[in-house]
Amino acid sequence: MECPNLQNLPPRWAHFCLGIEHFVRRDLRTDPTGSTLLVAYSTGLDSTALLYIFHILAPRLDLRLTAANLNHMLRPEAVHEQDLARTTCADLHIPFVGEAADVATFARQHKTGIEEAARSLRYDFLERARKKVGATHILTAHHADDLAEDVLMRLVRGTGWPGLAGMQGCLHERKILRPLLGTPKNTLRKFLEYLEIPWEEDHSNQDMRFLRNRVRSEILPLFLRENPAFLDAINQLWKMGRADQSYWENKVEEYAGRDKTVLIPSTLRTLDPALRYRIIKHTVETLGPGQALAETIFTLDDLWQKKATGKAIQFPGDKVATITREGIRFGKKAR
Amino acid sequence: MECPNLQNLPPRWAHFCLGIEHFVRRDLRTDPTGSTLLVAYSTGLDSTALLYIFHILAPRLDLRLTAANLNHMLRPEAVHEQDLARTTCADLHIPFVGEAADVATFARQHKTGIEEAARSLRYDFLERARKKVGATHILTAHHADDLAEDVLMRLVRGTGWPGLAGMQGCLHERKILRPLLGTPKNTLRKFLEYLEIPWEEDHSNQDMRFLRNRVRSEILPLFLRENPAFLDAINQLWKMGRADQSYWENKVEEYAGRDKTVLIPSTLRTLDPALRYRIIKHTVETLGPGQALAETIFTLDDLWQKKATGKAIQFPGDKVATITREGIRFGKKAR
Repeated sequence: MECPNLQNLPPRWAHFCLGIEHFVRRDLRTDPTGSTLLVAYSTGLDSTALLYIFHILAPRLDLRLTAANLNHMLRPEAVHEQDLARTTCADLHIPFVGEAADVATFARQHKTGIEEAARSLRYDFLERARKKVGATHILTAHHADDLAEDVLMRLVRGTGWPGLAGMQGCLHERKILRPLLGTPKNTLRKFLEYLEIPWEEDHSNQDMRFLRNRVRSEILPLFLRENPAFLDAINQLWKMGRADQSYWENKVEEYAGRDKTVLIPSTLRTLDPALRYRIIKHTVETLGPGQALAETIFTLDDLWQKKATGKAIQFPGDKVATITREGIRFGKKAR
Repeated sequence: MECPNLQNLPPRWAHFCLGIEHFVRRDLRTDPTGSTLLVAYSTGLDSTALLYIFHILAPRLDLRLTAANLNHMLRPEAVHEQDLARTTCADLHIPFVGEAADVATFARQHKTGIEEAARSLRYDFLERARKKVGATHILTAHHADDLAEDVLMRLVRGTGWPGLAGMQGCLHERKILRPLLGTPKNTLRKFLEYLEIPWEEDHSNQDMRFLRNRVRSEILPLFLRENPAFLDAINQLWKMGRADQSYWENKVEEYAGRDKTVLIPSTLRTLDPALRYRIIKHTVETLGPGQALAETIFTLDDLWQKKATGKAIQFPGDKVATITREGIRFGKKAR
């Protein structure tokens, strides 16, 4: 079929593409007009839809697109997929950047899991490609099903609020945008099927050794069975989580200008516990790597309320908080 | 065996009972010392443990206990259970109140589900019993597994934050306390097994027509498989939810003294969206029965931001919000 554009699409699918633009503007609070964007393109269903949607929006928004594909050297078919990616981009007149990275060797050398190594090398490649082509953002194809899986995985792991509401749609520091986060995978599939655009199936998604794949194939279907509108429910939760995240960041920021290693009771006592917990968390985490678990924060807050002077609480990353007569003193442990 | 008390229990179980007292004081922020308490006692595992724990704590805390049991007339064995409850309480020298209520007929007459009718009649009975014996609180046996199920059910249904964090441990208006909310069911079982105290199994828990039972038998086990400490994770989430609930109630309260039917832009514009959403929700819900869904609140907020003067949004319970030049006007619909 002819190359799809907003004019030759039926109203339903033209409206769908404009909905993605609306989501980027309203929910990701980003105006893409006139920018150069790097599309992370694996040839799978999700990123193929992403590439075509932005190809369709490009004239309207005056976008310059580049697509990028990394061969992770984990599956033999990845070579063919990169060839396909290159050909598709040539057909669409979209510049293409391809590379290969030996994920398995990197994982062995750095003693990390395959998934983590793949993610690390992939984002390293995407960031280099972004700089090379002068793109303002990297677009990734995470969609509403990914978001729901992410929320369920965070619930499994015990993530607190607002982190529980799922991955961010816009990572300002890492220049990542996730324009499909409000769109169910099933809608992306119908879009590609309508356009008769093929995609490659990634069979590593079926490997049950990964928590994500167990959540996808076993847990998420039960939630969808109980509530067919579960993806909408997650979308609402995500919006509230984004609002709360911004709210708490601003609130904590009001205290961030003060002394960062000691918190004085006269300050803390006037604070609501909900804010105090988050200031403690923020203070611990600005000292260096290592997250502060909710349980440890509650314990520390209890000790401080009981005025348990001299008691100390350890945090991951050799960090320690000590109850003093002046308040709570935070610092790195002497080794 | 002899009647258990803090002195003849092994340290582990004495410590366990004191932990329940600690939970009531610290997490439910209630000092039970010297009070009269009504124990909702069904003869099932959970409430049998509740009765014995508070029987053990009673001398130390100077408590006067009464137990109450309602025969729901849904299962033939309920008559036997009430007899057993009466006998057990006589053995423990705990005053007992028993009644029967025809739940099935009530459900038919009021066109509600059996579960809702049972809950309604049970709490009505418990409240009458509470007043009769002059108890400050009704104790119910909801435990950590119930809390986890409740969080999962709220996630299924799309409950926003902080409601998502689960049922409250202390309902001030309804005088209900849930002292076991931090305790796993399995610990209650081991406690009763150690004391060689029998309980009755309630087979209606196995009826898969109820969402709660499907969550219990199908969904919760998957979360426990992925994270054996999942109940701890839920407990942390619950604590953060309680802190946030109190925080947002106070914040919304600061605006509640003002005009309740119109919100003026000059007020709203200076507010963070996280607070604005909650003020809108609170304003809608104080107009009368019918909850404001997150999606509707977001839509209303969007219209207001776009200054869509004249646009109206309907809320359940014949409530309506209209964008005016002055702000958002809330009111009941003319019928």
